[in-house]
Amino acid sequence: MNPTIELLQHHRSIRKYKTTSLTTEQIEAIVKSAQMASSSSHVQAYSVIGVTDSDVKRKLAVLSGNQPYVEESPLFLVWCADMYRLREACSLNETEMVAGTMENFITATVDVALAAQNAAIAAESMGLGIVYIGGIRSNPREVSELLQLPELVYPVFGMCVGVPDHDPGIRPRLPLQAVYHHNAYKHDGTVIRQQIAEYDQIMRQYYLARTKGSRDTTWSKEMADKYRQPSRIHMRGFLENQGFRFE
Amino acid sequence: MNPTIELLQHHRSIRKYKTTSLTTEQIEAIVKSAQMASSSSHVQAYSVIGVTDSDVKRKLAVLSGNQPYVEESPLFLVWCADMYRLREACSLNETEMVAGTMENFITATVDVALAAQNAAIAAESMGLGIVYIGGIRSNPREVSELLQLPELVYPVFGMCVGVPDHDPGIRPRLPLQAVYHHNAYKHDGTVIRQQIAEYDQIMRQYYLARTKGSRDTTWSKEMADKYRQPSRIHMRGFLENQGFRFE
Repeated sequence: MNPTIELLQHHRSIRKYKTTSLTTEQIEAIVKSAQMASSSSHVQAYSVIGVTDSDVKRKLAVLSGNQPYVEESPLFLVWCADMYRLREACSLNETEMVAGTMENFITATVDVALAAQNAAIAAESMGLGIVYIGGIRSNPREVSELLQLPELVYPVFGMCVGVPDHDPGIRPRLPLQAVYHHNAYKHDGTVIRQQIAEYDQIMRQYYLARTKGSRDTTWSKEMADKYRQPSRIHMRGFLENQGFRFE
Repeated sequence: MNPTIELLQHHRSIRKYKTTSLTTEQIEAIVKSAQMASSSSHVQAYSVIGVTDSDVKRKLAVLSGNQPYVEESPLFLVWCADMYRLREACSLNETEMVAGTMENFITATVDVALAAQNAAIAAESMGLGIVYIGGIRSNPREVSELLQLPELVYPVFGMCVGVPDHDPGIRPRLPLQAVYHHNAYKHDGTVIRQQIAEYDQIMRQYYLARTKGSRDTTWSKEMADKYRQPSRIHMRGFLENQGFRFE
């Protein structure tokens, strides 16, 4: 196992940070690494807002559902899918952009995720810790106003970055056989449910150990609780308001 | 610059491969690295199909718009957003999953992209090369049938993996200032168009050099050509057919 793979396989989300600020060199190394990720047809349909202003971070922490580490992390990155710049590129060539397809929405969302994951790895390779914050989609309109996001840009997720001040354990993943298929998808329900049941036992022990016995649950129970009701049903309307269409 | 950041910043897409097969250990290292990427609320809403069967690869190469490297790469990975397993997890707990929201579609699409980018980095750290294949969205229904994807699973992109047999140069990215914003989005059109114009000159030289002078174009011209018409307008219907909804 080489050092990069070791780094990848030792990821854990960090939610407590030292107060140490990042240097300009560190931020540039993170963003340049993000930029070198692949991008669909080289469209580079993303932007990232680096938030260091305490007041803005405090507001984002509240808007993300009161997650204190958003405020406490020295750098909070807001990763945005961005078709606005591409519309400018089209208009420079006197072309009206036809942006409103599901395909374009997918490519922009994928582009920003690939870039962000490179940023995460770059940060971790420098001894920093990160955690993704999907919570910024809880109040995307307010986040967009706060960060002055223009039309055709939407905040996909946030990311806290900083020097770790705790060492949480690695969270076990699904069995490799559950996510990896050879030549065709294995959709035998019996096999899938068996894999989930095995994983449930691993995760049950993990939750018990992490909470000194107080949280007795399994992965599939958590998933059932999560997907019992629709989540963030404002997203569609918010995205349309930002100018996205899904044709 | 540490070795991992150096690796990230030296990415180039590889489209010619030696015939060397990957070992089981290499494939496992790639998939395990993918699995350790972050996942929204630990839902792990993705699957990956590793295709080594020549016949399946040949068909996928055609379905991706006749991209020969899909067939020639020793391993072709098809990265899928996957809510099917989660529905099984819900049903294990006698819960009916409410899956049909834009939010769930976004989290599954982001989950698979984060995992895939970890896989890309892991592969590159072992001296392998990769290229993402968005072309599998050109004929997603046929791809899904070929790979027997069940409901609530969709192929987001493919990825060729193998030992590189050429060394293309690094493709220049947008200026860092164009994609990175500090505390708020800079949406001054004059500035953005100036950044694009600068980048256009860099990319013009890049295209000329790569094609021995035969391809005289710029980035923004390419973008205008791409976005002049809608692309892959079948995606919405295909996704609905797979059981996805966007409420």
